[in-house]
Amino acid sequence: MRIVQKFGGSSVKSLELIQAIAERVVRTASAGHEVVVVVSAMGDATDHLLDLASQVDGQSSPDNLDFLLATGEMTSAALMAMAINRLGRSARAVMGSQAGILTDGHFSEARILAVRPTTVESWLGEGIIPVVTGFQGISGEGRLTTLGRGGSDLTAIALASALKADACEIYSDVPGVFTADPRIVADARALSQLSYDEMMELASQGAQVLQTRAVLYARQSGVAVQARSTFDEHEPGTRIDEKQTSRAPRWVTAVALDTHLTKIGLVGVPDRPGVAALALDRLAQEGINIDLVFQALSHDDLRADIALTVADRDRERAMAVSQETLRALGGRSLLVDGDIAKISAVGAGVRNHPGVAAAMFRALADAGINIQMIGTSEIKISCIIARSDAERALNHVHQVFELNDSQG
Amino acid sequence: MRIVQKFGGSSVKSLELIQAIAERVVRTASAGHEVVVVVSAMGDATDHLLDLASQVDGQSSPDNLDFLLATGEMTSAALMAMAINRLGRSARAVMGSQAGILTDGHFSEARILAVRPTTVESWLGEGIIPVVTGFQGISGEGRLTTLGRGGSDLTAIALASALKADACEIYSDVPGVFTADPRIVADARALSQLSYDEMMELASQGAQVLQTRAVLYARQSGVAVQARSTFDEHEPGTRIDEKQTSRAPRWVTAVALDTHLTKIGLVGVPDRPGVAALALDRLAQEGINIDLVFQALSHDDLRADIALTVADRDRERAMAVSQETLRALGGRSLLVDGDIAKISAVGAGVRNHPGVAAAMFRALADAGINIQMIGTSEIKISCIIARSDAERALNHVHQVFELNDSQG
Repeated sequence: MRIVQKFGGSSVKSLELIQAIAERVVRTASAGHEVVVVVSAMGDATDHLLDLASQVDGQSSPDNLDFLLATGEMTSAALMAMAINRLGRSARAVMGSQAGILTDGHFSEARILAVRPTTVESWLGEGIIPVVTGFQGISGEGRLTTLGRGGSDLTAIALASALKADACEIYSDVPGVFTADPRIVADARALSQLSYDEMMELASQGAQVLQTRAVLYARQSGVAVQARSTFDEHEPGTRIDEKQTSRAPRWVTAVALDTHLTKIGLVGVPDRPGVAALALDRLAQEGINIDLVFQALSHDDLRADIALTVADRDRERAMAVSQETLRALGGRSLLVDGDIAKISAVGAGVRNHPGVAAAMFRALADAGINIQMIGTSEIKISCIIARSDAERALNHVHQVFELNDSQG
Repeated sequence: MRIVQKFGGSSVKSLELIQAIAERVVRTASAGHEVVVVVSAMGDATDHLLDLASQVDGQSSPDNLDFLLATGEMTSAALMAMAINRLGRSARAVMGSQAGILTDGHFSEARILAVRPTTVESWLGEGIIPVVTGFQGISGEGRLTTLGRGGSDLTAIALASALKADACEIYSDVPGVFTADPRIVADARALSQLSYDEMMELASQGAQVLQTRAVLYARQSGVAVQARSTFDEHEPGTRIDEKQTSRAPRWVTAVALDTHLTKIGLVGVPDRPGVAALALDRLAQEGINIDLVFQALSHDDLRADIALTVADRDRERAMAVSQETLRALGGRSLLVDGDIAKISAVGAGVRNHPGVAAAMFRALADAGINIQMIGTSEIKISCIIARSDAERALNHVHQVFELNDSQG
């Protein structure tokens, strides 16, 4: 078998962990497999580099920043290769560029255009274990680029696809994807399998296992991803692929919670066509992603209220932009509420069962939890609730959908 | 003018220094010059990386070690480019590989085979300041290599040659080359000019300004090097080139001291042809450089003593090899003396003036200093003396050759 194994930052945060992972890699290779290792930067190395950069220039240009950040993965790749060598197997650190990860020139969030892993392929043929720096590639102009958040997952999946690997294992500090966050829901279960779409909804809902872009790439290229724990070799983890498994059909596969959202309300804006579009356009121009939007007519006059949610990290910029929009429209006031949470039920069954939404609303109502906003997609229902209700809501919905039942 | 400016590790050891150097670079660029910056790793960054590597594997393979060490220069190059950007000039960090430094595959001490700086050249045409990582290149197989000790100087000189630069400035924490180490000889003077050969002898004699390989490359490619101080912008520094300057002809240009040598004696080996060659061959096979060699016939029988000097860092290995040789030859005993120093008088005038050697021996004799071994080259005379006499000897010889006289 040809296996790509990717180890995230928490898995390589110390020399001891790097040595332990090297042992695991060598065991896999000694069992007769061809192994390609992909590594992230060690623990908080990237944060340290960002801090250095901000001390020199608060607004570093993204090309030089990518060049700086690339050293994080290079360091862990070199040390990992050394640790594997020390165990008697031949290993070579290799940059994303040399591994053939060709990207566009969009620094800090480059898109992979092609993968040409001829060097990695020939090393595998010689019995050498390539240790590839995740997160980075090279542009057509020959400049170092980075792939943005979750970029190392993307490197592993793209290599697995180009190398026609039999398996792509993404290791992190959690043993796969759960029916809910096990730190909050005591009887949450690890799922054995998920579809790409379900994983994408969960990824964007705050689950930390795999980033949305990486899952999207896996779906497009048909790579089956196994999300596993670095720290528990015997847990098989969660398989993410398109296969219809033998599991019993379920309405909902998992529930997720996002507590890093802020609600912004534009109160008393004129109720005429295009007003909401204007408010959203201005935010989009600033590169601010809007999650949910809700518009309601006021009772007393021909004015409307627009509510939307943004990520906490965009809060200040979203407030500034919305304040401008409000003034331009002659609106009444701006409301900002950071004390919210979004609870989402995700599952392929949502598509065909309108009853799922009703069951979720009833579950929250039964628990006395007020729903402030609602959003839906083909396989997801999300409700905005008060942050103080979040953990209770998650437990209750998890129970209502019987997700602790081990048949899943 | 097109100027290559290289800043060593002590010049970029802090963010404050990087910012100060960025200001200097921008001043040079703003005066209308095209500037290419070459940087070493920050201060003790390389030592820190070596330490990390040795914690993982005491005998790291040189390819992965080169990969790791390359991150040191990448970090300083990225931060330097950011610091220049912040001052309003466009700058881009660039790896040795992308700057076109093509080397052989001899990891950790790669030799430059060709320099193809088309990217750097085109950036200069666009008004961009390239900040090149020193010390590194890329092999024909596309793998990262490093150039060994003094490699960043080599990068700067090789780029200056390939780019047909008008000047190549090597900045360090000393204001050029002195007639003697100013920390030991109070009235030592900075030299305004030196020949390549003189600089090479001084480089190998312990002067820290420029490494031998870099000077050799400069001589071969005809690049004039200006050794300057990072910390004193008004000092012109020392020019190293082949020009015959207007300076008064002198026998000796500078005196140098090397206190990092060990003398090893093979006592009472058979006096037959080939014995000395055997002893030296075995050391050469181990990659140990021998500095001076001295062979003498014993008085009492047909046995000889062989004495040689090696760098302190090779002492243990040289002792082990010599002990074996001694046993194989049936020699009497091994002497090891670490308490020695080598004082060297260097100057183009040595070639044509036999009196220089005599003057040096007399000077040491007058000071009551015993000469243990003697070595000469076309432009150098070296004497091995007791380490405890070293500083006194340096001062005395400096004075005898009137090097404090500012006519030089």
